[in-house]
Amino acid sequence: MRTGRWYLGLSLLACATAAQAEDGYRLWMRYAPATASQTADPVTVRGEQTPMLAAAAAELRRANPAGLGPVMLAHANDPAVTALRLPVATLGDEGYLVRSVTIDGRPVTLVTGTDRGILYGTFALLRHLATGAAPTRIDLTSRPRVGLRMLNHWDNLDGVVERGYAGRSLWDWWTLPDYRDPRYTDYARANASLGINGTVLNNVNAKVESLTPRYIAKAAALADIFRPYGIKVYLSARFSAPVELGGLKTANPKDPAVAAWWAAKSDEIYRAIPDFGGFLVKANSEGQPGPRDYGASHADGANMLAAAVRPHGGIVLWRAFVYADTDPNDRAKQAYDEFKPLDGQFAKNVIVQVKNGALDFQPREPFHPLFGAMPRTPIAPEFQITKEYLGFATHLAYLAPLFSETLTADTHTRGHARVSQVIDGSLDRHRLSAIAGVANIGDSRDWTGSSFNQANWYAYGRLAWDPSLTPQAIAREWAMQTFGTDPKLLDTVVAMMMASREAVVDYTGPLGLAHLMATGHHYGPGPWVADLKRPEWNPVYYHRADAAGIGFDRTKTGSKAVAQYAPGLAKLYADPKTTPENELLWFHHLPWTYRMASGATLWDTLVQHYDRGVATVDTLRTQWQQTKPLVDPERWQKTDEFLAVQAREARWWRDASLSYWMSLNNLPLPAGSPPPAHDLAWYKAQTFPYPPGNPQ
Amino acid sequence: MRTGRWYLGLSLLACATAAQAEDGYRLWMRYAPATASQTADPVTVRGEQTPMLAAAAAELRRANPAGLGPVMLAHANDPAVTALRLPVATLGDEGYLVRSVTIDGRPVTLVTGTDRGILYGTFALLRHLATGAAPTRIDLTSRPRVGLRMLNHWDNLDGVVERGYAGRSLWDWWTLPDYRDPRYTDYARANASLGINGTVLNNVNAKVESLTPRYIAKAAALADIFRPYGIKVYLSARFSAPVELGGLKTANPKDPAVAAWWAAKSDEIYRAIPDFGGFLVKANSEGQPGPRDYGASHADGANMLAAAVRPHGGIVLWRAFVYADTDPNDRAKQAYDEFKPLDGQFAKNVIVQVKNGALDFQPREPFHPLFGAMPRTPIAPEFQITKEYLGFATHLAYLAPLFSETLTADTHTRGHARVSQVIDGSLDRHRLSAIAGVANIGDSRDWTGSSFNQANWYAYGRLAWDPSLTPQAIAREWAMQTFGTDPKLLDTVVAMMMASREAVVDYTGPLGLAHLMATGHHYGPGPWVADLKRPEWNPVYYHRADAAGIGFDRTKTGSKAVAQYAPGLAKLYADPKTTPENELLWFHHLPWTYRMASGATLWDTLVQHYDRGVATVDTLRTQWQQTKPLVDPERWQKTDEFLAVQAREARWWRDASLSYWMSLNNLPLPAGSPPPAHDLAWYKAQTFPYPPGNPQ
Repeated sequence: MRTGRWYLGLSLLACATAAQAEDGYRLWMRYAPATASQTADPVTVRGEQTPMLAAAAAELRRANPAGLGPVMLAHANDPAVTALRLPVATLGDEGYLVRSVTIDGRPVTLVTGTDRGILYGTFALLRHLATGAAPTRIDLTSRPRVGLRMLNHWDNLDGVVERGYAGRSLWDWWTLPDYRDPRYTDYARANASLGINGTVLNNVNAKVESLTPRYIAKAAALADIFRPYGIKVYLSARFSAPVELGGLKTANPKDPAVAAWWAAKSDEIYRAIPDFGGFLVKANSEGQPGPRDYGASHADGANMLAAAVRPHGGIVLWRAFVYADTDPNDRAKQAYDEFKPLDGQFAKNVIVQVKNGALDFQPREPFHPLFGAMPRTPIAPEFQITKEYLGFATHLAYLAPLFSETLTADTHTRGHARVSQVIDGSLDRHRLSAIAGVANIGDSRDWTGSSFNQANWYAYGRLAWDPSLTPQAIAREWAMQTFGTDPKLLDTVVAMMMASREAVVDYTGPLGLAHLMATGHHYGPGPWVADLKRPEWNPVYYHRADAAGIGFDRTKTGSKAVAQYAPGLAKLYADPKTTPENELLWFHHLPWTYRMASGATLWDTLVQHYDRGVATVDTLRTQWQQTKPLVDPERWQKTDEFLAVQAREARWWRDASLSYWMSLNNLPLPAGSPPPAHDLAWYKAQTFPYPPGNPQ
Repeated sequence: MRTGRWYLGLSLLACATAAQAEDGYRLWMRYAPATASQTADPVTVRGEQTPMLAAAAAELRRANPAGLGPVMLAHANDPAVTALRLPVATLGDEGYLVRSVTIDGRPVTLVTGTDRGILYGTFALLRHLATGAAPTRIDLTSRPRVGLRMLNHWDNLDGVVERGYAGRSLWDWWTLPDYRDPRYTDYARANASLGINGTVLNNVNAKVESLTPRYIAKAAALADIFRPYGIKVYLSARFSAPVELGGLKTANPKDPAVAAWWAAKSDEIYRAIPDFGGFLVKANSEGQPGPRDYGASHADGANMLAAAVRPHGGIVLWRAFVYADTDPNDRAKQAYDEFKPLDGQFAKNVIVQVKNGALDFQPREPFHPLFGAMPRTPIAPEFQITKEYLGFATHLAYLAPLFSETLTADTHTRGHARVSQVIDGSLDRHRLSAIAGVANIGDSRDWTGSSFNQANWYAYGRLAWDPSLTPQAIAREWAMQTFGTDPKLLDTVVAMMMASREAVVDYTGPLGLAHLMATGHHYGPGPWVADLKRPEWNPVYYHRADAAGIGFDRTKTGSKAVAQYAPGLAKLYADPKTTPENELLWFHHLPWTYRMASGATLWDTLVQHYDRGVATVDTLRTQWQQTKPLVDPERWQKTDEFLAVQAREARWWRDASLSYWMSLNNLPLPAGSPPPAHDLAWYKAQTFPYPPGNPQ
């Protein structure tokens, strides 16, 4: 019965694509099936018709690319494939080979690998054709660099998505498991098209009810729908569940009753979801319970949970995003200080999940010092696809440059290992490897709140598969599939995307500044905020600006955070002259009159960045105007209206920030830089109640 | 796994026939435009091309009904129309006449009236054709009975819809006024198709920010979009706004500074929204501020606001849904006691808005005793379209019988005036008349959370236009437009709809029982609940069941609520033998052994109702199975899955309720009635966290 229901879901979706409004629902899978009526089924599946192969075949039939002849889906060990002596030995569990071959004297496009490899190969074939390749002489082969390519949904059980700017949660917990929205299948298709193979359904700020039988059944329904698309379900676990659900007196990981409770709970979950992925845990961070409440370490907590899921092949992803409200230490140092000493203490099925930077998903941060610092522990980077600090759904900010900046960063460890070599396990020969992205997906019709936000989901997935892809290449292939193949359109869209993230950095916090937003939301400027209870909640904590200068001294004269990096890099960061200019004020407190490499003062350079950010957004608007004849009206109009918002708000950020800096340094703006539109009091008086993504 | 191939074959077939996804988005406006390419525009607009006439013409062009020849839209005073000497004198401001005529020797379908009349006539014409009428010899004329036909959105500024079961608010306050979602226009089209001409954008539990300049601009953007569709925007007003926004020390309506603040605020709103409709106010009810906080009356409060909007032609809708936490009086009596003495004291532009029953939108309530009791005051009924107490989005409950039951109820005042004659102003010759429905609309793709919930929006709008329409007729015309014209399909769907609301009454609270739900949601059963702070929050307050009997004595031996009705009716309600059986326990506390008219005991009859409710839902499921070949798969499947939920939950309601009643009366179930599936403790232990529509 299970397969029957699933297939029916497919058939509904297959019909949905025909004559549809361009409202963004179809994402980058805007197939234009060949119009000629088919007399024969163009897809042959050899061997057992597994649900995964059926999903691949259904996708091919739906897309039905013009000019593509017969396609054969066959396992790499199928006699028809082995006879061809293809280089399939290195494909592994997930790799694919797609090649134009001749079988029984007939030309055919062969897609081969494991079940999962064939699924991914099918999507790779469709992408190949949709990005302009000829349907003949195809030869594609690839395998993913990272084992677990995950989305993290910060979705609450009441439907609110923390830091979500695309409507409510996709998961309608209230009607699950009874109602299986066809959209769940489309979610799985989109992820499978990128190779994403795991999804954490609920927020890391976890509610304990997600572990009750009622919610396990709901998660199981989703797992059933996702399974044919190669996606495993994970849950965020609330560490205090043994107390709150189990009635125990403690959640101390060293208490055998606690371990037994988790083991029994895991058994229960695996009965409902045999391929359950495991737990993601945010512990002892921002008010969440954890092992430190009992004097135990993060390793103690992680290992106790790991033991519970190990018999079933599950894993634990343990987040390193911790900072204590009682620790006067530089917040950016605390994760390293807490976790580095634990290297080697984690169980084999634990992965430590580390945000890309040491603070919190700012538009730019130096890579996290834990990358490369824990060689005995698999480390997964956590990126934020949703734009918590980059303008929510409204602002255009293509994030592949941000993701790639971290992935390609030189750790200066063991030679010049890149962060990507740390996280894919190759550097330290870990069996497990993972990468996580905090999803930007909601139930908005266009999934992500804007057309361009779809590119961030796409780019994350593509980089998770292959961190060496360039942001530019990803932008181009995304744009071709999303908007069409017109060369002028593509050039314009790709140029816009490539400029966009740096523009956000420029108008919100250039030169390494960070965490400058107003209170109550992470949207508008508030560099003046100094009245929040905990020091590290205040922007003034991060910029430390006064009449004389600006920036956070993290060298040996300051918080000494530079010492957390490998010696070669620490040495560079120790000196402003060898610190990359775009990270300058992250590491150094400098006089406003400091001379930059260009010869200009720090102040004048800072202003130039703000001005450049504003100007870039104006350019984005102009560029988008040029695309009007080439883009369907609904998506064009929404983007155009959003760009108008961004242009206004880029000025707001610049003007508010400059007003504040000038109130401290009393310096004039450089020639040609316009004065802020309002005085500082006006900017301080702005309020923005009810921001999205902000659960109460 | 062999099933796989079969299903895939099915999906290919299904695709061949479906041109557009049937996901419910198109509501009852599923136009199937004529396929022949048009060479000439079939629509002529005479006179000024106003936005409203343009909207009407655009709708006709979009629908382009097969077989319909040229259509002319022309004002009733256009020479081409006056020459025809048509009966247009009685159309009023909103009525229409649509007729097949000959002008200049050419046959044409004329749509005439005012701008607004032409808009409504256009939709009437399209409905006429979509429900099977021939496109020739058309002769339609109608005018609305009620002046203000309103939706009330209980939408919070953070996007949560109180008692909303169809996703988030349609209004994306965060991106308004910049981004104008095309869906706002589709909302307006759907309402205009029914003649709804006013919408209150925000929750009656109002946040004060809705009156700030920032939110007024957002409301104005929506008003601009809705205006061509004849829909005025209203706002719920928080009575304490002069204190919270204006910085005044009081919101006392007798304070001139308070009145001046509201006058200035109204002026500000009208500058942004020249045709702003006015304010809806929930005052001194469930924690909301109001004039009673200052010893002033509801009339004082309403009149002060009315004076503020009167210069602009605005009105105030003042809700009578009040009950005090300090009043030991029967909650069902309090609105009457508070408002009846104020009759004659309200300003001319005030309408008192009264819920259909005296309690709170229960599956069945006797009509509110205020209908007919305040002849000097325009009274608007407030219906709840969203199914707060009738199974949220999941259960099928067609509400036209509920709405119509109130509208057609005999008040026994001034002869046998019906409630509809009270509310349309005809009985007491009021200039103003209004009707309000609490919307069931959200941003779910199908707008209302299920296909059948769309019928409740539709039926409310149709009854608001003409309260004399029968639920059966409305069901049939809705079903034809929503699912198609197959006679067997229509018969089945209409039969299902007509049985559905009574089924909900039967399995949740038959024979006049009410307010029996569990705590924390208004979904499942909790007749045993007795532990809530205020007496009238507890189900036991309403059913008063014990070993001997059940029901709320509202006669002279009890709360005396029957005396609030007109004498002729009060007399009937005073005696269980003359009280309608479906309202019996609303008015009477009776022994379990009381003999009903049938001769059966009250207990046995009660059980029969529960059993009938469960059986009816089983029948709904069977009936729906028969429609499978006749309904598109996506909508069919969702309804089928929802009916499975309803069948399970109808049993849950029945079993939990009977378990509890039996724990009190120790009576056996009548022969053939199955025992509850679980014991009472099991039902009491069920929890349902995170219900939708329940803002924290």
